[in-house]
Formats: sequence, structure tokens, C-alpha cells
Amino acid sequence: MNSISSKLFHSHLHLHLLCTAKSAPLSTSKFRVSPKATKISNLQLKEKWLDSLSVSPLGGDEGVICASEPQWVLGVDPDVSGAVALLKPDGSVSSAQVFDTPNVKVLVGKRVRNRLDARSIVQLLQTFDAPHGTRAYIEQSNPFPQDGKQGWWSGGYTYGLWIGVLVASGFSVVPVTSHEWKNHYELSRSSSSKDDSREVASALFPSLSHQLKRKKDHGRAEALLIAAYGRGLIEQMDQVDSNGSHVSSDLFNSLITEKKAV
Amino acid sequence: MNSISSKLFHSHLHLHLLCTAKSAPLSTSKFRVSPKATKISNLQLKEKWLDSLSVSPLGGDEGVICASEPQWVLGVDPDVSGAVALLKPDGSVSSAQVFDTPNVKVLVGKRVRNRLDARSIVQLLQTFDAPHGTRAYIEQSNPFPQDGKQGWWSGGYTYGLWIGVLVASGFSVVPVTSHEWKNHYELSRSSSSKDDSREVASALFPSLSHQLKRKKDHGRAEALLIAAYGRGLIEQMDQVDSNGSHVSSDLFNSLITEKKAV
Repeated sequence: MNSISSKLFHSHLHLHLLCTAKSAPLSTSKFRVSPKATKISNLQLKEKWLDSLSVSPLGGDEGVICASEPQWVLGVDPDVSGAVALLKPDGSVSSAQVFDTPNVKVLVGKRVRNRLDARSIVQLLQTFDAPHGTRAYIEQSNPFPQDGKQGWWSGGYTYGLWIGVLVASGFSVVPVTSHEWKNHYELSRSSSSKDDSREVASALFPSLSHQLKRKKDHGRAEALLIAAYGRGLIEQMDQVDSNGSHVSSDLFNSLITEKKAV
Repeated sequence: MNSISSKLFHSHLHLHLLCTAKSAPLSTSKFRVSPKATKISNLQLKEKWLDSLSVSPLGGDEGVICASEPQWVLGVDPDVSGAVALLKPDGSVSSAQVFDTPNVKVLVGKRVRNRLDARSIVQLLQTFDAPHGTRAYIEQSNPFPQDGKQGWWSGGYTYGLWIGVLVASGFSVVPVTSHEWKNHYELSRSSSSKDDSREVASALFPSLSHQLKRKKDHGRAEALLIAAYGRGLIEQMDQVDSNGSHVSSDLFNSLITEKKAV
């Protein structure tokens, strides 16, 4: 699978969910699966998972955003030292903004740790005044096997908290793996460092380069790159749609059996 | 520390946050702590943590709920097979309702797992039409050391997602440890089973006993018991306040150094 088909697959899937619901009747009804029930395909599982992260139910028109409309895009690095980037619809460099994720110090046993500040994140998102259903691309939580259990817990917590806040605040969440978006910028080589992310983000968003100077600004850089990656997916999908092309269901099925959906 | 002082401590802390903000100037200003900054006390850390989970900033009047007002209360068992209970302010048995947490099946690698359905949870909470600032008592995530890393990740994810949805939906979240609320019902003995939770919940909410008959209804039972525990805290605090009693700052300080704040 090449990089472009990978990107198109994800874009296609989500736009399919948001824009062509009436031709996908299987996804419009609520149903539960037990081991005894008819086996549900991987495609349906993936559809229902993404659907559960979108603010508008399939089949409903309210708040539905389609690829042909100008898009606002959020990019989220969900780490506790991460950031959220906002790209406004005009697509100019000046429309980009990035914000450190608010956090708060808490006692865990005898240690002081940073945790996300839920209320401040909610308030920050409210200041964006983004249209209902705006897509928020978030890096999928993928803890390293060598991380300790506390690291796994924290990874789940920050990812879950961001998803909860975003969906309840009217955003449609699209998880992307770090492999996906880093591949796009050729940042997935083992030699790539967080400094490289800052360098690429500064080149893409020169007006924000003063906010990306310090080593600890890598969360800002990654949020910007995730948002730009998401915007790129939407634009490419527009081009595919205008050419009458599509991602085949065979490719779709093969992809969803290969990927982790955490 | 006896059971009543433990309960009063937590109630006192949260009511203090919600109702007496103007006498707590340290908590009204945003500040960040670095290792070089003045050391912040455990009390301040705990205050700021709880504050970050409440919808109304300290010092603001909007949406502030005080103990003397009738209270709506939510109780949340955040497990993926958990539930949410709603107690309406009249305090009669008939005002209680409980709902299974909506979930969705996802592929994680080659395994199908249950995950919380974020959008359906948001929609469920909206149907409650609860007053802004309603307190939601949630069992604090506390994975077992013997659980695997995936279990720790899931525990963090469900807890974070619930907190994110609740805060963004206008609730003030109060984490309670399982030890706290189970102690209250004498359910923390090693011999206590999930069946015991269902039995106690059925006795407290006889009109709901038909929803608590199956083994798998223990999530419903626990959500109801957590909500009732939270309501009990509020009522006890009312009594303490009317007697002019208070929880001493010494007791307060000793408690926060003993407890985990995950």
C-alpha cells in the first residue's frame, strides 16, 4: 500500500461516514453484537467505531460537513505536554494557530504528576467558535511496549479525555496513527527526532516559527503537522471525488484487517 | 480516620470549591509550577485538581451549586460494562434512574473489544437535562497491579473519556475511590462480591430491583450506589454546616498526603 492510497482510504472512510449516510443503511440502525449474533465484518466495526466519535448520527443532516465545503480542522497531540492546532478554512498560513494543552499538577501517591486540565481545555475549544462537526484529527494512542503500566494508563487517560471533550464539544474525531502522519512528512525514520518535527512545522507555518523554537515546543509542532495532514486528506479527497475515482471496497477491507484500531 | 470524617472531608473539600471561592484567593488565579517555583502544598494541588474537573471557575457565580440547594446527582461506574445513575432532587426512590453505558465494538489488532461509545454517552447525558454544574461522582480509576498493560490503558481511557464528556457537558466531576464508597455500604470486605452490590442497590432502590436481577447488572448497581453515596455526602455536609462544624485543616492536610489522586 502506498502512502497516497493509505491517506485516501482514511479520508474516504470518514467522508463516507459524514456525507453518504443514506446509501449505507447498515450503519443507520443501532445494534448490539453478541458472540452468537451474525458475524459483523471488519468494515462495519470500523464504520461504527468512527461513527461513535462523530457528533452527527449517520443518516442525519444536522451538522453534516461534506468535503466540498470549506473546512476548519483541528490537530491534537494528546500527550499531557501536547498541544492543539487550529486551521481556519481560508487555508492561508495566517489562519493557523496553536495552543499548549492546559494541564494541572496532581498528587499520585507521593509523586506530583501533570494531568490534563479538563475545564481549561473545554474553555479553550469554546474560544475557537468552530462550526459544529468540525473534524479533529488526533494522534492515536499507541504506548510503547517498554513503557510501564503507569505510562499505559496515562496514555489511555489523555487520549480518552481528549476524545470525550472533543465529541461533547461538537467535534468529529478522526484518530490517525503516528506512523500515518509522520510518513507523510518523512518523519518516521528511526533517525528522525522531535527537532525534525519542529523544523518541518516551521517550514509549513513560517508565521508560527517563533512559537516552535524551543525543544519543548515539539508538541505544538506535532499538533500543527497532524492538522495539516488532516487538511491534506480532505483536499485530496476533493480531487478524487471530482475525478470520479474511488477507493475500492477490496482495498478498504484489506486495510482494516491490517491496522490496529485503538 | 473514621468513615464519617472521611466522607465529610471529601464533601467539605468539594463544597468549599464550589461555594466559598471568594475566601480562597489562591485558587482563583491561574498559575503554573516549575520545580524552581515556590513549593505548592498538597492542599493546593488537590484543590486545583478538583477545580479542573468542575465546570465553573472558582470565584465565578455562574452555575455555582451550593449544598443548601436541592441537588441532582450522577453516579458513574466508568468501566466499559459500567453504567450511569441519575438521582433527581426530590430524593424519593422514584426519582432514580440507571442506564447501561453505551459501547461499541472495535478491532484492536485482530481482537474485537468493547469501547465506550462517546457520542451516545453525550446524547444520553443531554436527555437528562440536568442543571449546569450538577455533580457527577465517578469511581476513581485504580487498576490492579496484576492487570496487564492493556487493562491499564483501558482503565485510563474509560476514566478519561467519562471525565472529558462530563466536564464538557456541564457537570462537575468528583472522583471517589472504590474503597470510600464501598466502605460506606460495608462492601469492601474481601468476601464481598458484585452480587452484594446488586443486593444493597436493590434494597436502596426497590423500584429498580427488576433492573438489577442479572449478574451482569452489577455496573448498574455500582452506579446507583456511587450516586447515593454522593448524595449522602451532600446531605451530611448540610447538617455539618447547619451545626457550625467544620473539617479542620490539619485533618484535611493529613488526608491528602495519604490518598492517591489519580
